[in-house]
Amino acid sequence: MLPFARITIVGLGLIGSSLARGIRTFTPTVRITGYDASAEVRETARRIDLCDDVADSAGAAVTDADLVILCVPVGMMGPVAAELADDLPAEAIVSDVGSCKASILAALRGALPQQRIVPAHPVAGTENSGPEAGFATLFRDRWCILTPEADCDPLAVEQVGDFWRRLGAQVEVMEAAHHDLVLAVTSHLPHLIAYTIVGTASDLEDVTRSEVIKYSAGGFRDFTRIAASDPTMWRDVFLANKDAVLEMLQRFSEDLSSLQRAIRWGDGDALFDLFSRTRAVRRSIIEQGQDDAKPDFGRSH
Amino acid sequence: MLPFARITIVGLGLIGSSLARGIRTFTPTVRITGYDASAEVRETARRIDLCDDVADSAGAAVTDADLVILCVPVGMMGPVAAELADDLPAEAIVSDVGSCKASILAALRGALPQQRIVPAHPVAGTENSGPEAGFATLFRDRWCILTPEADCDPLAVEQVGDFWRRLGAQVEVMEAAHHDLVLAVTSHLPHLIAYTIVGTASDLEDVTRSEVIKYSAGGFRDFTRIAASDPTMWRDVFLANKDAVLEMLQRFSEDLSSLQRAIRWGDGDALFDLFSRTRAVRRSIIEQGQDDAKPDFGRSH
Ligand SMILES: NC(=O)c1ccc[n+]([C@@H]2O[C@H](COP(=O)([O-])OP(=O)(O)OC[C@H]3O[C@@H](n4cnc5c(N)ncnc54)[C@H](OP(=O)(O)O)[C@@H]3O)[C@@H](O)[C@H]2O)c1
Ligand SMILES: NC(=O)c1ccc[n+]([C@@H]2O[C@H](COP(=O)([O-])OP(=O)(O)OC[C@H]3O[C@@H](n4cnc5c(N)ncnc54)[C@H](OP(=O)(O)O)[C@@H]3O)[C@@H](O)[C@H]2O)c1
Repeated sequence: MLPFARITIVGLGLIGSSLARGIRTFTPTVRITGYDASAEVRETARRIDLCDDVADSAGAAVTDADLVILCVPVGMMGPVAAELADDLPAEAIVSDVGSCKASILAALRGALPQQRIVPAHPVAGTENSGPEAGFATLFRDRWCILTPEADCDPLAVEQVGDFWRRLGAQVEVMEAAHHDLVLAVTSHLPHLIAYTIVGTASDLEDVTRSEVIKYSAGGFRDFTRIAASDPTMWRDVFLANKDAVLEMLQRFSEDLSSLQRAIRWGDGDALFDLFSRTRAVRRSIIEQGQDDAKPDFGRSH
Repeated sequence: MLPFARITIVGLGLIGSSLARGIRTFTPTVRITGYDASAEVRETARRIDLCDDVADSAGAAVTDADLVILCVPVGMMGPVAAELADDLPAEAIVSDVGSCKASILAALRGALPQQRIVPAHPVAGTENSGPEAGFATLFRDRWCILTPEADCDPLAVEQVGDFWRRLGAQVEVMEAAHHDLVLAVTSHLPHLIAYTIVGTASDLEDVTRSEVIKYSAGGFRDFTRIAASDPTMWRDVFLANKDAVLEMLQRFSEDLSSLQRAIRWGDGDALFDLFSRTRAVRRSIIEQGQDDAKPDFGRSH
């Protein structure tokens, strides 16, 4: 039996539209209602037939839902929950897909003190955003992390997990604070560094921007992909997961300083040692199905 | 008319074997001789029929060449040039494919005072190495940078440029020192940072290695690709291009500190501003054919 019959998606961007497409594809009997604050996005959603129904307010979208999934930027989770609180059926489960969890859980709990809340974070995405960027298989073979409170109804956790597994995801449950530390290193720090280096490369005097672009295939272009991600989303992530991000950044900076010293003093052995260790990580990621084994991410050559 | 009839490739790894395959594919009448210091690599090269002839010494490989291309790690360019100097025909042009140019040019000139030398760097590669990693189209639509001395025979530069264009590359000529500055930002710094963050992520106490791997699709996995590149090659690059790399690293560190401050003080506008600027760089890279337009590098989903 399907865990939910009427799902409402609030925020019809990359993740919201991928959810809608995934639900349509893998559990086609589920009724999908969508809502987005942007009239333009709602219009697009109707045009491309993303949902069974696109509502014109958050409240109207949730009145008969048994699962509501918030797919808005991290900083909007609390306000959106407050906006729909009055119309939410008491038995509906509220979930979200935000990239950091402790601050969202606190905001949702503040807005919905009595509701069953099962926060989720599908570790999957692309650099694109908006309602036309989504696709049904985005979550396939990726992990979705649930971070319920300690006293959360276990049935609700089980149902939300079941929902994600039907979209092809693998499900893990952990504490929100631990999630935020893990994702600080596997997602937030990489984005921060990518944004930084693309900024650095744009601001040089002795190397032109056109040179940076021409010769980007030497490695730089890899970083430009994630540095093209949505600015609002990422601003919110760094503000909301500040402590964990700063901790990881501190460690990274220390390691970078030690490599800087090795280069300055011509310590080839130290460089070689590190460069040999890091290969194993790539191998494990490929073995565990979290990236393509093809060279160069399978880019066409 | 083809610029060269008998080409010798010294070092049959990723780049050397891609050259051999490219020459076979695009200029099949050229006779290719190969040599590698490793007997195992020579054996493999014979088995997979990479060249018309695989010689057992660097000297024997070059005796009747009109172009010799050194495809060994940066630190081996000088020693290899010295090794083959006595057997090199006076009219042969010597080139190389090393990732930094000023130090290589000095080393080659030291070993071959009278020879025509046209250093080259094809800005193309994958994270794999060895004779079986190469493919004929690696250089297609990529840039190859030539860094001849100011008094170099213009005909030699033209011929080497012609050679690369036949493999599908676009050719640019610049001074070795400028090349090293440009590549420090578009290639060397990205590799340094990728190696560092993969190292940082491997050494945490509160986040396990298995968690890092499981949730790597949040962005981290992008960095693990270039951090899986050959340790010898990259040790040599950082030692040889020390000054330019340290300069770029200094700028990167300053920019990272300023972002760190923005996060610490909750300055969302500063974050948003940077994150909006960096998107344009990705767009230009795609427009200029230096990366795939498909989301997520075209990874299969
Ligand atoms: N992108 C990823 O790779 C990824 C991966 C995992 C999780 N996430 C998380 O998923 C969430 C959504 O990200 P996304 O990539 O899907 O972003 P997106 O494509 O920008 O979509 C967000 C949508 O939410 C709408 N919205 C903003 N405020 C709203 C409100 N108050 N009420 C209703 N709709 C509102 C936006 O409309 P406007 O355009 O008018 O603002 C936009 O259409 C974020 O929390 C993010 O952290 C993202
Ligand atoms: N990989 C890239 O993405 C890329 C891109 C552009 C330029 N480059 C440059 O291309 C050059 C080769 O890199 P690669 O990626 O092709 O490396 P690779 O796959 O490791 O191949 C290098 C080959 O050279 C051999 N070699 C080492 N010392 C030698 C010597 N003294 N005489 C003859 N052969 C020797 C090595 O044998 P052993 O294995 O026994 O050491 C190996 O087979 C480097 O200078 C690099 O900077 C690389």
